Amino acid sequence: MHRFDLATSRHTQALDITHLFSGRAWPDGLLLVTVEHTTAALFLGESGSEMFADYERVAAGLIEDYGPWQHEVWNPGNAQSHVLSSFIGGQLLLPVTDGRLDLGTWQRVIFLELDGPRQRHLAVTSVATRPL
Amino acid sequence: MHRFDLATSRHTQALDITHLFSGRAWPDGLLLVTVEHTTAALFLGESGSEMFADYERVAAGLIEDYGPWQHEVWNPGNAQSHVLSSFIGGQLLLPVTDGRLDLGTWQRVIFLELDGPRQRHLAVTSVATRPL
Amino acid sequence: MHRFDLATSRHTQALDITHLFSGRAWPDGLLLVTVEHTTAALFLGESGSEMFADYERVAAGLIEDYGPWQHEVWNPGNAQSHVLSSFIGGQLLLPVTDGRLDLGTWQRVIFLELDGPRQRHLAVTSVATRPL
Repeated sequence: MHRFDLATSRHTQALDITHLFSGRAWPDGLLLVTVEHTTAALFLGESGSEMFADYERVAAGLIEDYGPWQHEVWNPGNAQSHVLSSFIGGQLLLPVTDGRLDLGTWQRVIFLELDGPRQRHLAVTSVATRPL
Repeated sequence: MHRFDLATSRHTQALDITHLFSGRAWPDGLLLVTVEHTTAALFLGESGSEMFADYERVAAGLIEDYGPWQHEVWNPGNAQSHVLSSFIGGQLLLPVTDGRLDLGTWQRVIFLELDGPRQRHLAVTSVATRPL
Repeated sequence: MHRFDLATSRHTQALDITHLFSGRAWPDGLLLVTVEHTTAALFLGESGSEMFADYERVAAGLIEDYGPWQHEVWNPGNAQSHVLSSFIGGQLLLPVTDGRLDLGTWQRVIFLELDGPRQRHLAVTSVATRPL
């Protein structure tokens, strides 16, 4: 298992983390990437500052009116972050060919911080495949 | 393949099912857990009665105004349960180390009933990994 | 790796693609299916024209009021398609027994077009499993 560390700088922040995977050759097959937290999400999506503004605006607004929140142990807005990240999900299986990520033309690996700024960790596991 | 059986007691109910995995030693690597239904979801999230109230309130309200529902074969609210559970998702890949689930500090396996009370089934499959 | 090609005919369209998997015997274990695009999603759900109308109406409405959209490179509504497909997700792990998909009673593989009509591609990979 490999672990990536990641620092976010804003409360709600989309980050293209595809470059994290470029530093080494991975075993061909699949990489499972899992967010090890409960207030951040992970998905495949298009990259770019305008796209990120759209992800972030929807993430901030989609469930904001569903309070009053019961789970407000840490800080205001934290419960909303838990619910939204759980519903979006935090796992991806990424194809690897010739040691590199083999994604669709517009697909990038996007990390969605929902309760930042924080230090974050991602677990990476190699999954065995079979010929098809 | 292993199967867990689960009984829910309310229409919309978040349940921490992490304890289901404590009864035996699993092969190291990954466990795929899949909900075998179309009106319940599964995610990694924080546990606790206040947190569950928040999951349930958002789940009950997020798409409730998008009717009139066409698929009302079984009972009122069932179509909404189908759509929401499909969009949230019902699969997780759980890391196993030394025979036990190896989750992040706050991560628990949460089952989200959206059309209960019902008897539910989860399929568990061991996925082969490779060293990284 | 195997690839399915798919043509959609409407902007927002749910399609039951379970039949795509019936043409051959697959290795027992798991099939990973991944949408290779950023404006379409994939999930397990119930099939049927009334169910599809419900999926499509929620998909069209859930985030439509969160503009103004910054990412409007291609066409109106495209940014909304990116955000929603990313949040829903585009990967499934499908169990295979005796060469055929082994889903729950009501589970079908549903492709959700969010920016059609388009030609779409799905990547299928066989994932190795271990006895449990």
